[in-house]
Amino acid sequence: MTGRLVIVGLGPGDPSLRTPQVSAALAAATDLVGYGPYLQRIEGALGAIRHTSDNRQELDRARHALSLAAEGRRVAVVSSGDAGVFAMASAVFEAIEHGDPAWRRLDVAVMPGISAMLAVAARLGAPLGHDFCVLSLSDNLKPWPVVLRRLQAAAAAGLGMALYNPVSAARPWQLGEALDALRALLPGTVPVVFATAISRPEERIVLTDLADASPEQADMRTLVLVGTEATRSIARGEGRTPWLYAPRGAGAA
Amino acid sequence: MTGRLVIVGLGPGDPSLRTPQVSAALAAATDLVGYGPYLQRIEGALGAIRHTSDNRQELDRARHALSLAAEGRRVAVVSSGDAGVFAMASAVFEAIEHGDPAWRRLDVAVMPGISAMLAVAARLGAPLGHDFCVLSLSDNLKPWPVVLRRLQAAAAAGLGMALYNPVSAARPWQLGEALDALRALLPGTVPVVFATAISRPEERIVLTDLADASPEQADMRTLVLVGTEATRSIARGEGRTPWLYAPRGAGAA
Repeated sequence: MTGRLVIVGLGPGDPSLRTPQVSAALAAATDLVGYGPYLQRIEGALGAIRHTSDNRQELDRARHALSLAAEGRRVAVVSSGDAGVFAMASAVFEAIEHGDPAWRRLDVAVMPGISAMLAVAARLGAPLGHDFCVLSLSDNLKPWPVVLRRLQAAAAAGLGMALYNPVSAARPWQLGEALDALRALLPGTVPVVFATAISRPEERIVLTDLADASPEQADMRTLVLVGTEATRSIARGEGRTPWLYAPRGAGAA
Repeated sequence: MTGRLVIVGLGPGDPSLRTPQVSAALAAATDLVGYGPYLQRIEGALGAIRHTSDNRQELDRARHALSLAAEGRRVAVVSSGDAGVFAMASAVFEAIEHGDPAWRRLDVAVMPGISAMLAVAARLGAPLGHDFCVLSLSDNLKPWPVVLRRLQAAAAAGLGMALYNPVSAARPWQLGEALDALRALLPGTVPVVFATAISRPEERIVLTDLADASPEQADMRTLVLVGTEATRSIARGEGRTPWLYAPRGAGAA
Protein backbone atom coordinates (compact mmCIF):
# COMPACT_ATOMS: atom_id res chain seq x y z
CA MET A 1 0.00 0.00 0.00
CA THR A 2 1.30 3.42 -0.89
CA GLY A 3 -1.37 5.57 0.70
CA ARG A 4 -0.76 7.76 3.68
CA LEU A 5 -3.01 8.81 6.53
CA VAL A 6 -2.21 11.82 8.68
CA ILE A 7 -4.36 12.78 11.64
CA VAL A 8 -3.89 16.49 12.23
CA GLY A 9 -4.91 19.06 14.81
CA LEU A 10 -5.79 22.44 13.31
CA GLY A 11 -5.40 24.28 16.59
CA PRO A 12 -8.28 26.25 18.08
CA GLY A 13 -9.14 28.30 15.00
CA ASP A 14 -6.82 31.19 14.23
CA PRO A 15 -4.49 30.11 11.41
CA SER A 16 -1.52 31.67 13.24
CA LEU A 17 -1.93 28.88 15.81
CA ARG A 18 -1.65 26.09 13.24
CA THR A 19 1.75 24.43 12.99
CA PRO A 20 3.70 24.53 9.71
CA GLN A 21 3.82 20.71 9.90
CA VAL A 22 0.04 20.52 9.74
CA SER A 23 -0.25 23.18 7.04
CA ALA A 24 2.20 21.25 4.87
CA ALA A 25 0.32 17.99 5.40
CA LEU A 26 -2.97 19.61 4.44
CA ALA A 27 -1.44 21.05 1.30
CA ALA A 28 -0.13 17.60 0.30
CA ALA A 29 -3.39 15.75 0.95
CA THR A 30 -5.60 14.43 -1.82
CA ASP A 31 -8.51 13.91 0.59
CA LEU A 32 -9.62 15.77 3.69
CA VAL A 33 -11.89 13.93 6.12
CA GLY A 34 -13.61 15.61 9.04
CA TYR A 35 -16.48 17.37 10.66
CA GLY A 36 -17.83 20.03 8.31
CA PRO A 37 -17.11 23.16 10.37
CA TYR A 38 -13.49 22.07 10.85
CA LEU A 39 -12.97 21.48 7.13
CA GLN A 40 -14.42 24.92 6.44
CA ARG A 41 -11.54 26.45 8.38
CA ILE A 42 -9.04 25.19 5.82
CA GLU A 43 -8.64 27.91 3.21
CA GLY A 44 -5.98 26.48 0.96
CA ALA A 45 -5.75 22.70 0.41
CA LEU A 46 -6.72 23.39 -3.06
CA GLY A 47 -7.50 20.35 -5.10
CA ALA A 48 -8.26 18.03 -2.22
CA ILE A 49 -11.60 16.26 -2.06
CA ARG A 50 -13.46 17.15 1.10
CA HIS A 51 -15.37 14.37 2.85
CA THR A 52 -17.51 16.03 5.48
CA SER A 53 -19.41 14.13 8.09
CA ASP A 54 -21.54 14.64 11.14
CA ASN A 55 -19.75 15.35 14.41
CA ARG A 56 -20.75 12.10 16.07
CA GLN A 57 -19.83 9.55 13.42
CA GLU A 58 -16.22 9.28 14.53
CA LEU A 59 -15.64 5.58 13.93
CA ASP A 60 -17.38 5.59 10.54
CA ARG A 61 -15.32 8.59 9.55
CA ALA A 62 -12.12 6.86 10.69
CA ARG A 63 -12.91 3.73 8.68
CA HIS A 64 -13.71 5.79 5.62
CA ALA A 65 -10.38 7.60 5.91
CA LEU A 66 -8.50 4.30 6.32
CA SER A 67 -10.23 2.84 3.26
CA LEU A 68 -9.20 5.84 1.19
CA ALA A 69 -5.60 5.54 2.37
CA ALA A 70 -5.65 1.82 1.58
CA GLU A 71 -6.63 2.76 -1.99
CA GLY A 72 -3.43 4.78 -2.22
CA ARG A 73 -4.83 8.25 -1.46
CA ARG A 74 -3.04 10.78 0.74
CA VAL A 75 -5.64 11.39 3.41
CA ALA A 76 -5.73 13.98 6.19
CA VAL A 77 -8.18 13.40 9.03
CA VAL A 78 -8.88 16.80 10.55
CA SER A 79 -9.60 17.66 14.17
CA SER A 80 -9.90 20.96 15.92
CA GLY A 81 -7.30 21.67 18.61
CA ASP A 82 -5.06 18.66 19.09
CA ALA A 83 -6.06 15.42 17.35
CA GLY A 84 -5.09 13.35 20.39
CA VAL A 85 -7.19 15.17 23.00
CA PHE A 86 -10.81 14.02 22.79
CA ALA A 87 -10.60 14.08 19.03
CA MET A 88 -10.08 11.85 16.01
CA ALA A 89 -6.77 10.11 16.76
CA SER A 90 -8.25 7.61 19.21
CA ALA A 91 -11.08 6.79 16.83
CA VAL A 92 -8.65 6.08 13.99
CA PHE A 93 -6.56 3.70 16.11
CA GLU A 94 -9.70 2.02 17.40
CA ALA A 95 -10.72 1.48 13.77
CA ILE A 96 -7.27 0.11 12.92
CA GLU A 97 -7.26 -2.31 15.85
CA HIS A 98 -10.64 -3.76 15.01
CA GLY A 99 -10.53 -3.38 11.23
CA ASP A 100 -8.83 -4.79 8.15
CA PRO A 101 -5.44 -6.24 9.24
CA ALA A 102 -3.89 -4.57 6.19
CA TRP A 103 -4.58 -1.17 7.77
CA ARG A 104 -1.80 -1.87 10.29
CA ARG A 105 0.74 -1.63 7.48
CA LEU A 106 -0.46 1.79 6.33
CA ASP A 107 1.76 4.83 6.77
CA VAL A 108 -0.10 6.61 9.60
CA ALA A 109 1.11 9.70 11.47
CA VAL A 110 -0.44 11.93 14.10
CA MET A 111 0.50 15.62 14.00
CA PRO A 112 -0.12 17.56 17.18
CA GLY A 113 -1.96 20.87 17.38
CA ILE A 114 -2.52 23.63 19.91
CA SER A 115 -5.25 22.19 22.08
CA ALA A 116 -8.10 24.36 23.32
CA MET A 117 -6.86 24.07 26.89
CA LEU A 118 -3.47 25.54 26.00
CA ALA A 119 -4.99 28.35 23.94
CA VAL A 120 -7.50 29.25 26.65
CA ALA A 121 -4.91 29.11 29.41
CA ALA A 122 -2.61 31.40 27.43
CA ARG A 123 -5.40 33.91 26.90
CA LEU A 124 -6.07 34.07 30.65
CA GLY A 125 -2.46 34.03 31.83
CA ALA A 126 -1.20 30.73 33.23
CA PRO A 127 -4.09 29.04 35.05
CA LEU A 128 -2.73 25.59 34.11
CA GLY A 129 0.74 26.48 35.33
CA HIS A 130 0.77 23.68 37.83
CA ASP A 131 -0.62 20.16 38.20
CA PHE A 132 -3.93 19.73 36.41
CA CYS A 133 -6.21 17.20 34.78
CA VAL A 134 -8.02 17.04 31.47
CA LEU A 135 -11.46 15.46 31.60
CA SER A 136 -14.34 14.99 29.20
CA LEU A 137 -17.77 15.53 30.73
CA SER A 138 -19.38 13.43 28.02
CA ASP A 139 -21.08 10.28 29.24
CA ASN A 140 -21.67 8.97 25.73
CA LEU A 141 -18.87 6.44 26.10
CA LYS A 142 -18.41 6.11 29.86
CA PRO A 143 -20.90 6.03 32.73
CA TRP A 144 -21.70 9.32 34.41
CA PRO A 145 -20.59 8.06 37.86
CA VAL A 146 -17.07 7.61 36.44
CA VAL A 147 -17.05 11.24 35.34
CA LEU A 148 -18.20 12.39 38.77
CA ARG A 149 -15.63 10.24 40.55
CA ARG A 150 -12.82 11.72 38.46
CA LEU A 151 -13.99 15.27 39.15
CA GLN A 152 -14.10 14.53 42.85
CA ALA A 153 -10.66 12.91 42.83
CA ALA A 154 -9.19 15.90 40.99
CA ALA A 155 -10.78 18.40 43.38
CA ALA A 156 -9.60 16.48 46.44
CA ALA A 157 -6.07 16.28 45.03
CA GLY A 158 -5.82 20.03 44.37
CA LEU A 159 -5.61 19.70 40.59
CA GLY A 160 -6.68 22.40 38.17
CA MET A 161 -9.12 21.16 35.54
CA ALA A 162 -9.68 21.55 31.83
CA LEU A 163 -13.16 20.20 31.11
CA TYR A 164 -14.00 19.24 27.52
CA ASN A 165 -17.43 18.46 26.04
CA PRO A 166 -19.30 20.25 28.83
CA VAL A 167 -22.70 20.21 27.17
CA SER A 168 -24.59 19.20 24.03
CA ALA A 169 -28.20 18.92 22.93
CA ALA A 170 -28.20 15.30 24.06
CA ARG A 171 -26.37 16.06 27.34
CA PRO A 172 -28.09 19.09 28.87
CA TRP A 173 -27.80 18.43 32.62
CA GLN A 174 -24.30 17.00 33.10
CA LEU A 175 -22.42 20.29 33.46
CA GLY A 176 -24.78 21.52 36.18
CA GLU A 177 -24.32 18.33 38.12
CA ALA A 178 -20.55 18.49 37.68
CA LEU A 179 -20.43 22.05 39.01
CA ASP A 180 -22.59 21.02 41.98
CA ALA A 181 -20.20 18.16 42.73
CA LEU A 182 -17.25 20.56 42.68
CA ARG A 183 -19.07 23.08 44.89
CA ALA A 184 -19.45 20.34 47.50
CA LEU A 185 -15.64 20.01 47.67
CA LEU A 186 -14.13 23.38 46.81
CA PRO A 187 -14.63 26.96 48.03
CA GLY A 188 -17.00 29.13 46.00
CA THR A 189 -14.12 31.51 45.31
CA VAL A 190 -12.28 29.07 43.05
CA PRO A 191 -12.07 30.70 39.58
CA VAL A 192 -14.01 29.19 36.70
CA VAL A 193 -13.58 30.17 33.05
CA PHE A 194 -16.02 29.47 30.22
CA ALA A 195 -14.11 29.95 26.97
CA THR A 196 -16.10 29.54 23.79
CA ALA A 197 -14.70 29.45 20.26
CA ILE A 198 -11.29 30.59 21.46
CA SER A 199 -9.26 32.52 18.86
CA ARG A 200 -12.18 32.57 16.42
CA PRO A 201 -14.20 35.66 15.49
CA GLU A 202 -17.06 34.63 17.78
CA GLU A 203 -14.75 34.09 20.79
CA ARG A 204 -16.40 34.67 24.16
CA ILE A 205 -14.70 34.39 27.55
CA VAL A 206 -16.57 34.46 30.85
CA LEU A 207 -14.46 34.61 34.01
CA THR A 208 -16.43 33.82 37.13
CA ASP A 209 -16.09 31.68 40.23
CA LEU A 210 -17.45 28.36 41.35
CA ALA A 211 -20.22 29.94 43.43
CA ASP A 212 -21.59 31.80 40.41
CA ALA A 213 -20.72 29.36 37.62
CA SER A 214 -23.81 28.39 35.68
CA PRO A 215 -24.21 25.78 32.94
CA GLU A 216 -25.93 28.34 30.70
CA GLN A 217 -22.53 29.91 30.13
CA ALA A 218 -21.39 26.91 28.06
CA ASP A 219 -22.29 25.46 24.70
CA MET A 220 -20.82 22.71 22.51
CA ARG A 221 -17.80 24.87 21.61
CA THR A 222 -16.92 25.78 25.20
CA LEU A 223 -13.93 24.67 27.22
CA VAL A 224 -14.37 25.06 30.98
CA LEU A 225 -11.33 25.72 33.17
CA VAL A 226 -11.61 25.26 36.92
CA GLY A 227 -8.83 26.60 39.11
CA THR A 228 -7.81 25.56 42.59
CA GLU A 229 -7.67 27.28 45.95
CA ALA A 230 -4.15 28.33 45.02
CA THR A 231 -5.06 30.04 41.72
CA ARG A 232 -4.19 33.74 41.84
CA SER A 233 -5.93 36.61 40.12
CA ILE A 234 -4.16 39.86 39.17
CA ALA A 235 -6.44 42.84 38.64
CA ARG A 236 -5.54 45.00 35.65
CA GLY A 237 -8.20 47.69 36.02
CA GLU A 238 -10.20 49.59 33.38
CA GLY A 239 -12.50 46.80 32.26
CA ARG A 240 -9.71 44.41 31.34
CA THR A 241 -10.01 40.75 32.29
CA PRO A 242 -7.73 40.00 35.25
CA TRP A 243 -4.82 37.67 34.73
CA LEU A 244 -5.22 34.21 36.26
CA TYR A 245 -2.25 32.06 37.12
CA ALA A 246 -1.27 29.01 39.12
CA PRO A 247 1.80 29.76 41.25
CA ARG A 248 4.61 27.36 40.51
CA GLY A 249 4.10 25.66 43.88
CA ALA A 250 0.31 25.62 43.51
CA GLY A 251 -1.53 23.37 45.86
CA ALA A 252 1.47 22.78 48.05
CA ALA A 253 -0.84 22.30 51.02
CA MET B 1 4.95 52.38 29.02
CA THR B 2 5.26 51.27 25.44
CA GLY B 3 7.17 48.05 25.93
CA ARG B 4 5.71 44.67 25.22
CA LEU B 5 6.32 41.30 26.83
CA VAL B 6 5.38 38.07 25.10
CA ILE B 7 5.82 34.71 26.76
CA VAL B 8 6.15 32.13 24.04
CA GLY B 9 6.31 28.37 23.76
CA LEU B 10 8.72 27.13 21.10
CA GLY B 11 7.20 23.70 20.91
CA PRO B 12 9.26 20.59 21.58
CA GLY B 13 12.11 21.39 19.22
CA ASP B 14 11.43 20.79 15.55
CA PRO B 15 10.74 24.17 13.92
CA SER B 16 7.81 22.68 12.00
CA LEU B 17 6.04 22.37 15.35
CA ARG B 18 6.41 26.07 16.18
CA THR B 19 3.33 28.21 15.52
CA PRO B 20 3.50 31.10 13.06
CA GLN B 21 2.28 33.34 15.88
CA VAL B 22 5.36 32.54 17.94
CA SER B 23 7.73 32.82 14.98
CA ALA B 24 6.36 36.29 14.20
CA ALA B 25 6.72 37.39 17.82
CA LEU B 26 10.32 36.20 17.93
CA ALA B 27 11.12 38.05 14.73
CA ALA B 28 9.64 41.27 16.18
CA ALA B 29 11.44 41.05 19.53
CA THR B 30 14.32 43.30 20.49
CA ASP B 31 15.25 41.05 23.42
CA LEU B 32 15.04 37.30 23.94
CA VAL B 33 15.11 36.04 27.51
CA GLY B 34 15.43 32.38 28.41
CA TYR B 35 17.36 29.31 29.31
CA GLY B 36 20.40 29.04 27.06
CA PRO B 37 19.59 25.78 25.23
CA TYR B 38 16.12 27.08 24.35
CA LEU B 39 17.49 30.34 22.93
CA GLN B 40 19.95 28.32 20.86
CA ARG B 41 17.01 26.74 19.04
CA ILE B 42 16.00 30.09 17.56
CA GLU B 43 17.79 30.43 14.24
CA GLY B 44 16.42 33.69 12.94
CA ALA B 45 15.48 36.49 15.37
CA LEU B 46 18.25 38.40 13.88
CA GLY B 47 19.15 41.55 15.70
CA ALA B 48 17.63 40.65 19.04
CA ILE B 49 19.77 40.73 22.16
CA ARG B 50 19.88 37.33 23.82
CA HIS B 51 19.74 37.22 27.61
CA THR B 52 20.54 33.68 28.62
CA SER B 53 20.21 32.40 32.14
CA ASP B 54 20.44 29.24 34.16
CA ASN B 55 17.48 26.88 34.09
CA ARG B 56 16.56 27.38 37.73
CA GLN B 57 16.49 31.17 38.01
CA GLU B 58 12.91 31.49 36.78
CA LEU B 59 11.78 34.38 38.97
CA ASP B 60 14.94 36.41 38.43
CA ARG B 61 14.63 35.86 34.71
CA ALA B 62 10.97 36.95 34.80
CA ARG B 63 11.82 40.15 36.67
CA HIS B 64 14.62 40.92 34.28
CA ALA B 65 12.27 40.49 31.32
CA LEU B 66 9.65 42.73 32.95
CA SER B 67 12.24 45.42 33.63
CA LEU B 68 13.32 45.38 30.00
CA ALA B 69 9.70 45.66 28.83
CA ALA B 70 9.15 48.54 31.28
CA GLU B 71 12.05 50.33 29.58
CA GLY B 72 10.15 50.11 26.32
CA ARG B 73 11.82 47.05 24.82
CA ARG B 74 9.91 44.35 22.92
CA VAL B 75 10.78 41.30 24.97
CA ALA B 76 10.11 37.63 24.28
CA VAL B 77 10.44 35.22 27.19
CA VAL B 78 11.13 31.83 25.70
CA SER B 79 10.04 28.42 26.99
CA SER B 80 10.26 24.99 25.44
CA GLY B 81 6.95 23.29 24.71
CA ASP B 82 4.06 25.40 25.95
CA ALA B 83 4.91 28.41 28.13
CA GLY B 84 1.97 27.70 30.43
CA VAL B 85 2.78 24.07 31.29
CA PHE B 86 5.51 23.96 33.96
CA ALA B 87 7.32 26.76 32.21
CA MET B 88 7.89 30.50 32.30
CA ALA B 89 4.35 31.93 32.17
CA SER B 90 3.58 31.24 35.84
CA ALA B 91 6.89 32.75 36.92
CA VAL B 92 6.21 35.94 34.97
CA PHE B 93 2.78 36.41 36.52
CA GLU B 94 4.19 35.63 39.95
CA ALA B 95 6.75 38.37 39.36
CA ILE B 96 4.05 40.78 38.19
CA GLU B 97 1.83 40.12 41.21
CA HIS B 98 4.61 40.70 43.71
CA GLY B 99 6.62 43.28 41.77
CA ASP B 100 6.47 46.90 40.60
CA PRO B 101 2.77 47.91 40.35
CA ALA B 102 3.57 49.56 37.03
CA TRP B 103 4.22 46.11 35.57
CA ARG B 104 0.46 45.43 35.68
CA ARG B 105 -0.03 48.03 32.98
CA LEU B 106 2.45 46.45 30.60
CA ASP B 107 1.26 44.86 27.38
CA VAL B 108 1.77 41.18 28.23
CA ALA B 109 0.66 38.22 26.11
CA VAL B 110 1.13 34.48 26.37
CA MET B 111 1.43 32.55 23.12
CA PRO B 112 0.79 28.83 23.35
CA GLY B 113 3.06 26.15 21.96
CA ILE B 114 2.95 22.43 21.29
CA SER B 115 3.62 20.96 24.71
CA ALA B 116 5.86 17.94 25.12
CA MET B 117 2.91 15.80 26.20
CA LEU B 118 1.03 16.48 22.96
CA ALA B 119 4.10 15.86 20.81
CA VAL B 120 4.95 12.63 22.60
CA ALA B 121 1.38 11.38 22.52
CA ALA B 122 1.18 12.05 18.78
CA ARG B 123 4.40 10.13 18.17
CA LEU B 124 3.03 7.08 20.00
CA GLY B 125 -0.54 7.20 18.64
CA ALA B 126 -3.18 8.56 20.99
CA PRO B 127 -2.26 7.47 24.53
CA LEU B 128 -3.81 10.66 25.97
CA GLY B 129 -7.01 10.15 24.00
CA HIS B 130 -9.09 10.04 27.13
CA ASP B 131 -9.11 11.56 30.62
CA PHE B 132 -5.61 12.24 31.91
CA CYS B 133 -3.62 14.38 34.27
CA VAL B 134 -0.46 16.43 33.94
CA LEU B 135 1.82 16.39 36.95
CA SER B 136 5.27 17.67 37.79
CA LEU B 137 7.38 15.27 39.83
CA SER B 138 9.52 18.13 41.10
CA ASP B 139 9.40 18.70 44.82
CA ASN B 140 11.35 21.94 44.61
CA LEU B 141 8.22 24.00 45.19
CA LYS B 142 5.80 21.55 46.77
CA PRO B 143 6.28 18.81 49.34
CA TRP B 144 6.93 15.30 48.05
CA PRO B 145 3.89 13.84 49.87
CA VAL B 146 1.67 16.13 47.75
CA VAL B 147 3.23 14.70 44.59
CA LEU B 148 2.67 11.15 45.79
CA ARG B 149 -0.93 11.87 46.79
CA ARG B 150 -1.70 13.26 43.35
CA LEU B 151 -0.15 10.24 41.62
CA GLN B 152 -2.20 7.93 43.79
CA ALA B 153 -5.41 9.88 43.18
CA ALA B 154 -4.81 9.80 39.43
CA ALA B 155 -4.11 6.06 39.42
CA ALA B 156 -7.19 5.30 41.53
CA ALA B 157 -9.35 7.42 39.23
CA GLY B 158 -8.19 5.67 36.05
CA LEU B 159 -6.47 8.72 34.56
CA GLY B 160 -3.60 8.56 32.11
CA MET B 161 -0.59 10.59 33.19
CA ALA B 162 1.92 12.94 31.63
CA LEU B 163 4.73 13.38 34.13
CA TYR B 164 7.03 16.38 33.77
CA ASN B 165 10.36 17.02 35.50
CA PRO B 166 10.88 13.36 36.34
CA VAL B 167 14.49 13.68 37.45
CA SER B 168 17.38 16.11 37.86
CA ALA B 169 20.79 16.11 39.48
CA ALA B 170 19.22 17.49 42.65
CA ARG B 171 16.23 15.11 42.50
CA PRO B 172 17.65 11.65 41.82
CA TRP B 173 15.26 9.36 43.74
CA GLN B 174 11.80 10.84 43.17
CA LEU B 175 10.99 9.06 39.91
CA GLY B 176 11.80 5.65 41.39
CA GLU B 177 9.54 6.31 44.34
CA ALA B 178 6.78 7.57 42.04
CA LEU B 179 6.96 4.40 39.92
CA ASP B 180 6.86 2.27 43.07
CA ALA B 181 3.77 4.14 44.25
CA LEU B 182 2.07 3.49 40.92
CA ARG B 183 3.06 -0.21 40.93
CA ALA B 184 1.25 -0.54 44.26
CA LEU B 185 -1.99 0.57 42.60
CA LEU B 186 -1.86 -0.45 38.94
CA PRO B 187 -1.12 -3.71 37.08
CA GLY B 188 2.44 -4.17 35.86
CA THR B 189 1.14 -4.36 32.29
CA VAL B 190 0.16 -0.67 32.17
CA PRO B 191 2.26 0.94 29.40
CA VAL B 192 4.93 3.47 30.31
CA VAL B 193 6.76 5.68 27.81
CA PHE B 194 10.01 7.53 28.41
CA ALA B 195 10.30 10.15 25.69
CA THR B 196 13.47 12.21 25.67
CA ALA B 197 14.17 15.27 23.52
CA ILE B 198 11.10 14.60 21.40
CA SER B 199 11.33 15.90 17.81
CA ARG B 200 15.00 16.86 18.26
CA PRO B 201 17.95 15.10 16.63
CA GLU B 202 18.78 13.26 19.87
CA GLU B 203 15.21 11.99 20.33
CA ARG B 204 14.90 8.72 22.20
CA ILE B 205 11.69 6.84 22.96
CA VAL B 206 11.49 3.85 25.28
CA LEU B 207 8.18 2.00 25.40
CA THR B 208 7.92 -0.36 28.34
CA ASP B 209 5.43 -1.24 31.06
CA LEU B 210 5.04 -0.40 34.69
CA ALA B 211 6.61 -3.66 35.85
CA ASP B 212 9.80 -2.93 33.92
CA ALA B 213 9.91 0.86 34.07
CA SER B 214 13.16 2.05 35.59
CA PRO B 215 14.20 5.58 36.57
CA GLU B 216 17.47 5.18 34.64
CA GLN B 217 15.43 5.56 31.45
CA ALA B 218 14.79 9.25 32.20
CA ASP B 219 16.88 12.38 32.32
CA MET B 220 16.09 16.08 32.64
CA ARG B 221 14.71 16.25 29.10
CA THR B 222 12.37 13.27 29.49
CA LEU B 223 8.60 13.27 29.60
CA VAL B 224 7.09 10.14 31.13
CA LEU B 225 3.68 8.94 29.98
CA VAL B 226 1.81 6.38 32.06
CA GLY B 227 -1.23 4.69 30.53
CA THR B 228 -4.15 3.03 32.24
CA GLU B 229 -5.56 -0.47 32.32
CA ALA B 230 -7.63 0.53 29.30
CA THR B 231 -4.70 1.66 27.13
CA ARG B 232 -4.45 -0.47 23.98
CA SER B 233 -1.36 -1.45 22.03
CA ILE B 234 -1.41 -2.28 18.32
CA ALA B 235 1.52 -4.32 17.09
CA ARG B 236 2.95 -3.20 13.74
CA GLY B 237 5.65 -5.84 13.35
CA GLU B 238 9.15 -5.62 11.83
CA GLY B 239 10.85 -3.67 14.60
CA ARG B 240 8.41 -0.78 14.54
CA THR B 241 7.15 0.69 17.82
CA PRO B 242 3.55 -0.42 18.42
CA TRP B 243 0.84 2.20 18.39
CA LEU B 244 -0.57 3.09 21.81
CA TYR B 245 -3.99 4.58 22.22
CA ALA B 246 -6.67 5.24 24.80
CA PRO B 247 -10.05 4.04 23.54
CA ARG B 248 -12.59 6.82 23.53
CA GLY B 249 -14.43 5.26 26.46
CA ALA B 250 -11.19 4.53 28.35
CA GLY B 251 -11.55 3.69 31.96
CA ALA B 252 -15.27 3.19 31.72
CA ALA B 253 -15.11 0.62 34.51
